Amino acid sequence: MEVISGGIVATAGIKAAGIKTDKIGVAIITNEGGPATAVGAFTTNKVKAAPVEVTAKKIRKGKISAIVANSGCANAFTGELGLKNAHKMAEILARELNLNAEEIAVASTGIIGRQLPLDTIEEKIKILSKQLSSTPEASLNAAKAIMTTDKFPKEIAVKTVLEDGTEIHIGGIAKGAGMIGPRLKTATMLCFLTTDAAISRAALKRSLQEALGQSLNMAVVEGDLSTNDAVLLLANGRAKNQMIKVRSEKFQEALNYVTQEIAKMIIKNAEGATKFIEVQVLNARTKIDAKKIALAIVGSPLVKAAFFGEDPNWGRIAAAAGSVSAAMIPEKLSITYENSKGQIAKAVEKGKIIVNEGTRELLLARELLKDKELKVLVDLGIGKSKAIAWGCDLSYDYIKANAVFTT
Amino acid sequence: MEVISGGIVATAGIKAAGIKTDKIGVAIITNEGGPATAVGAFTTNKVKAAPVEVTAKKIRKGKISAIVANSGCANAFTGELGLKNAHKMAEILARELNLNAEEIAVASTGIIGRQLPLDTIEEKIKILSKQLSSTPEASLNAAKAIMTTDKFPKEIAVKTVLEDGTEIHIGGIAKGAGMIGPRLKTATMLCFLTTDAAISRAALKRSLQEALGQSLNMAVVEGDLSTNDAVLLLANGRAKNQMIKVRSEKFQEALNYVTQEIAKMIIKNAEGATKFIEVQVLNARTKIDAKKIALAIVGSPLVKAAFFGEDPNWGRIAAAAGSVSAAMIPEKLSITYENSKGQIAKAVEKGKIIVNEGTRELLLARELLKDKELKVLVDLGIGKSKAIAWGCDLSYDYIKANAVFTT
Repeated sequence: MEVISGGIVATAGIKAAGIKTDKIGVAIITNEGGPATAVGAFTTNKVKAAPVEVTAKKIRKGKISAIVANSGCANAFTGELGLKNAHKMAEILARELNLNAEEIAVASTGIIGRQLPLDTIEEKIKILSKQLSSTPEASLNAAKAIMTTDKFPKEIAVKTVLEDGTEIHIGGIAKGAGMIGPRLKTATMLCFLTTDAAISRAALKRSLQEALGQSLNMAVVEGDLSTNDAVLLLANGRAKNQMIKVRSEKFQEALNYVTQEIAKMIIKNAEGATKFIEVQVLNARTKIDAKKIALAIVGSPLVKAAFFGEDPNWGRIAAAAGSVSAAMIPEKLSITYENSKGQIAKAVEKGKIIVNEGTRELLLARELLKDKELKVLVDLGIGKSKAIAWGCDLSYDYIKANAVFTT
Repeated sequence: MEVISGGIVATAGIKAAGIKTDKIGVAIITNEGGPATAVGAFTTNKVKAAPVEVTAKKIRKGKISAIVANSGCANAFTGELGLKNAHKMAEILARELNLNAEEIAVASTGIIGRQLPLDTIEEKIKILSKQLSSTPEASLNAAKAIMTTDKFPKEIAVKTVLEDGTEIHIGGIAKGAGMIGPRLKTATMLCFLTTDAAISRAALKRSLQEALGQSLNMAVVEGDLSTNDAVLLLANGRAKNQMIKVRSEKFQEALNYVTQEIAKMIIKNAEGATKFIEVQVLNARTKIDAKKIALAIVGSPLVKAAFFGEDPNWGRIAAAAGSVSAAMIPEKLSITYENSKGQIAKAVEKGKIIVNEGTRELLLARELLKDKELKVLVDLGIGKSKAIAWGCDLSYDYIKANAVFTT
């Protein structure tokens, strides 16, 4: 597997375009020569935005030829008119590109409770329809167009050689900076993925769920669940590999990588975050236990505030680990901090506190915690399962960003 | 029912004493003339402090004659020595007062990972043993002694007349300011309650659980679960009422009131909070649904940050309401803000947004949100069940308090 440039258009047959002016961005992604096999994952919030309702229904039919997404207006809590407008957005693109509107997915992100500015969107769709391209700039423009409070555009692409010797590509763009919380079995932001691998819809669906379970669903900013989260994955089969009907280890590895990199980008971009925190839970009794504990730690406001304060507060990490219904024995617990240079500081070893007041270890831990990228290794010592979650600290700027931004 | 002075010693037969010097506070509460019927509720965290382990075991035997509690050291994550020290703390008081150590409950709060300073505690217990008294000052001193980051001592007492015409008293003291999160069926801080009602242990236990379910378990600061939470309730029967064997509506009403007032005091004292928020979920399909939604709203960092920003961000309230597994239909949802003067501002009515940009209602809502005590009425419009939860905003000072305080 190799990381390549091109973002979402690194996949053969995919074109993109994007534009953002006057606070409204629009991005278009198309699959040349007809619809691709499509799967998706959506927010589990009962307050679902109109585009989520509309696109989830289309995705269930299994075929998507284009995606049109906008930033600046979430089209959430907008009633019947919101649903109509979501359909209209697809219809405008269908008309411009001579496609079937039923095969066009829509997505929106931005302020809740306002109706879509359809005129502005139509204007932009008309312009973009003539700009569709498979150059790296096209992917970047699309990634920029869907940004809201994002500090940087998010895109990634990889190529890998499948078991049958065929080279395939996976590309993606995403947005997300706040209201990021995991719900196992669901998605957590806007993320559009494409691949030219030939893969059955059932295999594609399983593959996406597996990837999300160890990537976007393990990324936490503050744990709030959005009304608009959507992940879409299109597979057009252009690589002409032997159809993946059950599972390809190589494909899975590549998709896991792509979704994990997107998850990390989103956390690094988190509103007001000053530190990127990776929590590795090791030697848990089960995989589910490991995930629950990893999420409890990255999601704990007290743990997050301690990281902001650069305080090796292992007590809060231990308390967060013990707070969920998952096996853990305090006497077996070890907690180690690691900075981006690979330097480590042990805080707790098998229930014994190492970083006591006045020790060299405490000074070492305090020094390490000044780094901007940190790992916490939480070894439960009672099994063989592992999970990784990503989060950030809780800073003054998080509150600043969220006390004034009307969503 | 009537609120009276005296705190925990308002109950006939209860004496107290408390002292705090050199960062270590000690409080003693005794029941004159032998042990009282006792029940309790404790943290569900797997990392349980030694005093929680020790006291939970004693409480299961059903009889407690005294409580000794300290602040400044949580005696959590302290291994075998921590357990021994928790027992010793009870033994010291037993020796001083000539009581059975097995009937003495212990509790601790403060920094995690340090051993109890037993010498200091012994010294203070010796002094306090000679100061035990049933004057209001004694309760206040005990309440002050268990404070950590608390801004004010917390005590309350009521008297009520039971169904058989007997007057009984319920008194309590409590502490708690951070690491406050609810776990249904458990407790969330240190809270010591006494009553002179005659009540069977089974009825007392049910009564405490019912009261906690609508008081301390509905209070959220940031949702973190402490290692030391404990609620103890002692009933000594001195009121000589006809023994309550199943349930007394009057007793329940008084206990609910006492525990709710303590819950509100703890939230008003929350670390860094600038606003007290009461969320009332109305017309939910079930009581459990109403509770889940109320807790999701008061616990949402985005909702809390919006209150700090005095922004009528109903979209985040709706999203939080929809994020849990409880019935809700966006089209039936109404959200109303209310200030402490009883003035109201409707934000959403049956799914229709009232506080649109440029409306008088938006200005009104913004004005109301400047108040320090606010209610949010979330009417689901799909049933008849109700729940109330209490929380606070998320401010710069919360982060300041928790980025620097080593627990």
